Amino acid sequence: MPSAHTKPARGMRDFLPEDVRRREYVIGVIADVYRRYAFEPLETPAVENIETLTGKYGEEGDRLIFKILKRGEEGRATGEADLALRYDLTVPLARVAAEYRATLPRVFKRYQVQPVWRADRPQKGRFREFYQCDVDVIGSKSLVVEAELCAAVSDVLERLGFGDFEIHLNHRQLLTALLSGAGVPPDQHGTALVAIDKLDKIGRDGVLAELQARGIDHEAASRVFNWLTAGSSPDWLDRLNEFFSTGGNALGSAAIAELTEIVRLSQGTSAARYLRIEPALARGLSYYTGAIMEVRVKDLAGSLGGGGRYDGLVGMFSGEQVPACGFSLGLERILVVMSERQMFPTSVSGVAADVLVTQWNREEAVESLAIARDLRHAGLRVDVYPEPDKIGKQIKYASTRGIPRVVVAGDDERARGEVTVKDMASGTQRSVPRLELVDALRAEPEGSKLNG
Amino acid sequence: MPSAHTKPARGMRDFLPEDVRRREYVIGVIADVYRRYAFEPLETPAVENIETLTGKYGEEGDRLIFKILKRGEEGRATGEADLALRYDLTVPLARVAAEYRATLPRVFKRYQVQPVWRADRPQKGRFREFYQCDVDVIGSKSLVVEAELCAAVSDVLERLGFGDFEIHLNHRQLLTALLSGAGVPPDQHGTALVAIDKLDKIGRDGVLAELQARGIDHEAASRVFNWLTAGSSPDWLDRLNEFFSTGGNALGSAAIAELTEIVRLSQGTSAARYLRIEPALARGLSYYTGAIMEVRVKDLAGSLGGGGRYDGLVGMFSGEQVPACGFSLGLERILVVMSERQMFPTSVSGVAADVLVTQWNREEAVESLAIARDLRHAGLRVDVYPEPDKIGKQIKYASTRGIPRVVVAGDDERARGEVTVKDMASGTQRSVPRLELVDALRAEPEGSKLNG
Repeated sequence: MPSAHTKPARGMRDFLPEDVRRREYVIGVIADVYRRYAFEPLETPAVENIETLTGKYGEEGDRLIFKILKRGEEGRATGEADLALRYDLTVPLARVAAEYRATLPRVFKRYQVQPVWRADRPQKGRFREFYQCDVDVIGSKSLVVEAELCAAVSDVLERLGFGDFEIHLNHRQLLTALLSGAGVPPDQHGTALVAIDKLDKIGRDGVLAELQARGIDHEAASRVFNWLTAGSSPDWLDRLNEFFSTGGNALGSAAIAELTEIVRLSQGTSAARYLRIEPALARGLSYYTGAIMEVRVKDLAGSLGGGGRYDGLVGMFSGEQVPACGFSLGLERILVVMSERQMFPTSVSGVAADVLVTQWNREEAVESLAIARDLRHAGLRVDVYPEPDKIGKQIKYASTRGIPRVVVAGDDERARGEVTVKDMASGTQRSVPRLELVDALRAEPEGSKLNG
Repeated sequence: MPSAHTKPARGMRDFLPEDVRRREYVIGVIADVYRRYAFEPLETPAVENIETLTGKYGEEGDRLIFKILKRGEEGRATGEADLALRYDLTVPLARVAAEYRATLPRVFKRYQVQPVWRADRPQKGRFREFYQCDVDVIGSKSLVVEAELCAAVSDVLERLGFGDFEIHLNHRQLLTALLSGAGVPPDQHGTALVAIDKLDKIGRDGVLAELQARGIDHEAASRVFNWLTAGSSPDWLDRLNEFFSTGGNALGSAAIAELTEIVRLSQGTSAARYLRIEPALARGLSYYTGAIMEVRVKDLAGSLGGGGRYDGLVGMFSGEQVPACGFSLGLERILVVMSERQMFPTSVSGVAADVLVTQWNREEAVESLAIARDLRHAGLRVDVYPEPDKIGKQIKYASTRGIPRVVVAGDDERARGEVTVKDMASGTQRSVPRLELVDALRAEPEGSKLNG
């Protein structure tokens, strides 16, 4: 009887067949698009040496790492942990980049879709085991990388059926330059960005209040805000550029030049219609050094994914500066929005089979299995009713399971070299010569559509 | 610089792109075949509550479970573990079967391909993180289940290119009946089966010696052996049946009837040519209750996978008897044999792209990216050289990376509305009108074959 001890662990999920099909469909599209961009797949172990992970995610992150007890008496006695569960896909990428430097290409384009584990307090939409879908280019400073990432993400979302997203684009140096230009001292930039990052959640007044609470001068904050909310005016970027030029703020000008170049490079790509420079985009993580991106859709607070350039991070193990730029799609959020909008194709259904082959009697089971073999070799998904039973009961089973077609090979039909095919939607049935069965069922659109 | 601290944890592996492609290819074939048999995908969390796992795998198994430390001060102070890493896919299936009994179909056919973790001492071919590929039918006692499992496994191996395997088939009750009939007392059956299971590794004399060491009467052991090695004689099964009949051994006769029926049901399936009743097949695990199966190829000691009926195990959480029969393919072993025999199709190669698009200069990069977009939308895998560089260097890059075709769109070609396509294998190059490029490259066999 179902009871607490058969539930998955707290914050973890079982994925029943329909869940898995939906997840595999989305992951399949993501992987297929990334492969077309010549990204290569990488997989790293779920378990890392604990010293590989600790100290990489800040104090809060360290607390959220699942730690694995040392084996044997020693672990039990001391509570010492020597291993830990993967917390993200970026630190393993950095480790791999250092370990296999001699064999990996100079510019390594990899995608990685694997679960990560965080001992966060579970809440709606936040789990302790969840998938990250990361795509990164390491080893190149070219802005073509940023353009290609935006294009790939656009292709993924278009293929999944999203047509209404925006890719917000900004630059960490532009934000820094803005803050400096407005009179916010450098040691307050970090805390100011954390507040600015909340603009879409708490609004202008909320952010201004939080900036004040964080000790930022009110007038400086107002000046910053005039620029952050200028994005709707068509010539704001020119005016901002002038502001940087007159202030001698070379970093700011360089950032604008990079953003303009990314937009120019994207002209002929799938990203062209979705890209928008958005000065208020800040991104929470501290490690970004250049362009930053985030994908937004209207009916979701928060983003479907985000990324940016982070030239300081991947070299953490090698001790070398390794330029890097990446994007992470939020698989769980994409699934939520696609479910709410009913965006899954009919082929990604809860139906496990295209055809049910019935069993007339024990003797005839050999022929049922042979029919199933032929249909399966033709690519159809075929269920065989496991034991001889009343045909009515077997047809009811097909109905319950949503199987659209039932094949009955009774003694009379067998004698005539025929089988009966029943269409469950229309209720009609017809006789088909046994030797033409594969072609008859293959030609039917439901059968071929459902063939997963 | 690569050093110990960038290696994966002991017994764990990084899968670089070519590894992942090979693994995904094999897993893809397995999943595709299982779907055609109307098996449905299931995924369970890597992390389970520790009490879900402990006590299920025997004393030795319990020691090999990776245990996760309780979060916060409590864990650090006491060394208490409340979670653990998945050890196999059968216990989670049993948990799922109990938890979702009301929503799962009465006969639940599921496949599951996920990693498991065991704190075994790592050695050649044995890892602490490895994949299991399980397929199980729960809820039916029909022998059609055994026949379907053998057929599905045969289809998987045929699709992967194996033509020389055998599926050894035996029955736990046949072994029990044999031991009883030969005079081995029931309380020695377990220990005798452990010795018999080693027949292919240590040979007849080795097993006889081990049986003696385990306290089995020598004459009884010899009688058992006469039957175990009788499989090569054509009428051995009839003679064994007679032996059981005259001894009044109903269990033995029933086991033979089941084996004969599985072979009969398989006549019209893919398994027909591979199935062989093999009286010496014992399978190590104690939980089997009926038919047992194992896949053998000549050049591998041990098996490519195995399974059988285990009617007592899946009910462990629900407290009900749930009939079950399953098969587990050894992904790591299949990969080893396929690599040694070079069985991977050329599409599963180390090459990340079908085409490299070069960059002539910064201005022209927009056109390079537009060319890449068109080719990608046509399904080709396209790499874009990240920055403008000498064309010779870019072509050398394609050569190093094994990319078979290079597209160059220089200023002169652009003016003529053309691009140059270089074939790396032949060294030839030709001009193609820009608007015909997609068709030109799509039509080339290498391009379409490599499109993964």
